[in-house]
Amino acid sequence: MAKAAEPPSGTRDFLADDVRRRKAAFDTVAGVFEHYGFDPLETPAFERLEVFQGKLGEEASALIFKILKRGVHEATGEADLALRYDHTVPLARVVGTYGSQLPSPYKRYAIGPVWRADRPAKGRFREFTQCDIDTVGSASPLADAEVVWAIHDGLVALGVDDFRILVNSRKALHGLLEAYGVPEERGAAILGTLDKLDKLSGDEVVAELVERGLEQRVARELVEDVTATDTDRVRKQLDTTERGREGLAEIDRLLELTSGLPEGRVVFTPRMVRGLDYYTGPIFEVVATGYPGSIASGGRYDGLVAKLGGPDLPACGGSIGIERILAIQAAEAEAGVGLDVALTVLRAEDTVMRMAADLRAQGLRTGVYLGTSGKLGKQLKWANDQRARLVLIHGPEEQAEGVVTVRDMASGDQNRVPVADVATTVREQLGR
Amino acid sequence: MAKAAEPPSGTRDFLADDVRRRKAAFDTVAGVFEHYGFDPLETPAFERLEVFQGKLGEEASALIFKILKRGVHEATGEADLALRYDHTVPLARVVGTYGSQLPSPYKRYAIGPVWRADRPAKGRFREFTQCDIDTVGSASPLADAEVVWAIHDGLVALGVDDFRILVNSRKALHGLLEAYGVPEERGAAILGTLDKLDKLSGDEVVAELVERGLEQRVARELVEDVTATDTDRVRKQLDTTERGREGLAEIDRLLELTSGLPEGRVVFTPRMVRGLDYYTGPIFEVVATGYPGSIASGGRYDGLVAKLGGPDLPACGGSIGIERILAIQAAEAEAGVGLDVALTVLRAEDTVMRMAADLRAQGLRTGVYLGTSGKLGKQLKWANDQRARLVLIHGPEEQAEGVVTVRDMASGDQNRVPVADVATTVREQLGR
Repeated sequence: MAKAAEPPSGTRDFLADDVRRRKAAFDTVAGVFEHYGFDPLETPAFERLEVFQGKLGEEASALIFKILKRGVHEATGEADLALRYDHTVPLARVVGTYGSQLPSPYKRYAIGPVWRADRPAKGRFREFTQCDIDTVGSASPLADAEVVWAIHDGLVALGVDDFRILVNSRKALHGLLEAYGVPEERGAAILGTLDKLDKLSGDEVVAELVERGLEQRVARELVEDVTATDTDRVRKQLDTTERGREGLAEIDRLLELTSGLPEGRVVFTPRMVRGLDYYTGPIFEVVATGYPGSIASGGRYDGLVAKLGGPDLPACGGSIGIERILAIQAAEAEAGVGLDVALTVLRAEDTVMRMAADLRAQGLRTGVYLGTSGKLGKQLKWANDQRARLVLIHGPEEQAEGVVTVRDMASGDQNRVPVADVATTVREQLGR
Repeated sequence: MAKAAEPPSGTRDFLADDVRRRKAAFDTVAGVFEHYGFDPLETPAFERLEVFQGKLGEEASALIFKILKRGVHEATGEADLALRYDHTVPLARVVGTYGSQLPSPYKRYAIGPVWRADRPAKGRFREFTQCDIDTVGSASPLADAEVVWAIHDGLVALGVDDFRILVNSRKALHGLLEAYGVPEERGAAILGTLDKLDKLSGDEVVAELVERGLEQRVARELVEDVTATDTDRVRKQLDTTERGREGLAEIDRLLELTSGLPEGRVVFTPRMVRGLDYYTGPIFEVVATGYPGSIASGGRYDGLVAKLGGPDLPACGGSIGIERILAIQAAEAEAGVGLDVALTVLRAEDTVMRMAADLRAQGLRTGVYLGTSGKLGKQLKWANDQRARLVLIHGPEEQAEGVVTVRDMASGDQNRVPVADVATTVREQLGR
């Protein structure tokens, strides 16, 4: 068992620099989504247990944190509430709860923690932030394009520059299987295997496809077609079935509607499957140099809102893997925010408090020494620990003369200024 | 039982305007605390159950949301985790966990949700945001003054203007009881009764004091002394005991150190008790015109961090009742944020998407019509619902001429501009 002093397994305490870094990233992305006219939504940390029950698959259901009934019912050992597992189930509930009070289509973003009782591992937490945008109530391809575009801008704003948005279509995938004569009932399994093409070699995937009932020749052709750099072969196959043609049309529409993005950013990628089988239309996944796996993904999921207990509305959306991006960027993070000004205290506390108030009123991050030591050396050490840029000293000598010593911690330079001029001098020295 | 579509009892969904208003308030207060050199801290939503057990009183313990064990242990009906009840217990844990890695003193703020299984009522929720600042590891009166000052500035930044900060001292209160010959063991009960002076009449409080064992004459004198507008009588009483003198000294020190605040803001208020008995030094409470009850409070609590399982460090802090303030201000809230520009879609989707991208790149909040209607009237209604300031129309006629109609939704004025000039025109019209 872990020490009682540590946060629970799989969770983290965020101290100052972490909080600031994370908040800055969340605010950046939120700002982009706001510019696209997405509205923020915050739902409670927990929902009624029945809101989740039967809505998530078996695997996901096992990961739900359940909350014990309270008071006299606690002894039953039963749960009636559950911590939020994702932002999608609450979205479906909200669309049901507020209906016509919401704009139509309802474009919302949600950036906040979700909880999953997963086995903690490197980079896998039980409390982590999900960053979602979704448009509920629009079947228009513009809605899909807008999601891709907003996610693109969000990533750029987060400082991710070298990335590609792989697009495909669930309809195209099903059309492709049809073209290769794969029976409908094996479709999901075959797609599941194709999805492994980013982890396994082509031969390994062919072998698994054969295990799942494809002929060797068909399996090899399929893998060759979907991994070819040129998409012409796949396009020809897709053209042979109705679903394939529909899928191809929605892929091409998405490519057209996002053609304003930098050349080569959005790429039709026939082998890209997206594990989740609730997608019904265009799908996308973002891969970036320097980031393992995918850092964003999404697609159209027209039946899902109804399946999750909401009204039957078309919907599409996407998610930025913000924890993954933050984890990579943390390695390169800066030292963090220090104080603009640190005030030492050598008697004359009242003057010092007033000076501090003045400086804060000027918008400066200002700290006053609160320790017990009357020694200047100790107080300067404190100021240094606080990464203060300037230190003000108002010792006995300065008090007698009505001045303050302003010390620049980087250069060591110091000069004396009248108490009344402190704020002006400090602002000048800090270039504010 | 409530409808499945509603959020759980005592919790709220925050839709767009609410999220924005709340975030703005939290960011405002955080900005003030940052200026005082307080560091943000975010702890997990839940802690190990034992972190809370035996730390909170019986009443508080009954309000904890407990999380059921998972997997094979779920059937035991036992809990091992508990949702955060306040920010103080996690603070004590963090001070224990990180010790010397933290600045000394450790000045932190926490603005985030806490969960209590209280009976929901008007203005009382099971999920609500607490907004705390605390300084752990400083016994200096400057630390107390700084907390008062930061809370003061936080309230001003939140737009609360007409308020007073009532200050007192737990030492002074105990000294007062000593001066009136109240036996030590009855102290807590007597103070509990005095605390009701803001709700009950003087006579009612005298009656209750008599019930609790005070002589009628003593009870009346005590109530008269602590409620007199002039504090001279109380000061004289306090001067007769050592604890009283100590308390008076720390009150006067706090008044001195906050004398830079506007005249009359900080007021020695002998009848102000603060319900919680963990306070050990100066205490304060903020009352404001137009807000019932108190909207902020705090004080020094030197033994508490150790009692909560942390190291034995002096500490003081305060809390802004931000939910209460937000609730009052909501009544006067503005209509909220609309779109800067709404783009209708009458074919030519690609051009529209590119125009939208341009406008967003200029920092404008831009929405594209995503519905199915090809009728301009319906699309203008949507733009109106979105509170758009300008609407762009690029219909068949405009397409033929390579122009866009820019319509001002407030005045109804419209003019045609070449597609290439749209961004410039829009920015001019919006004054950006």
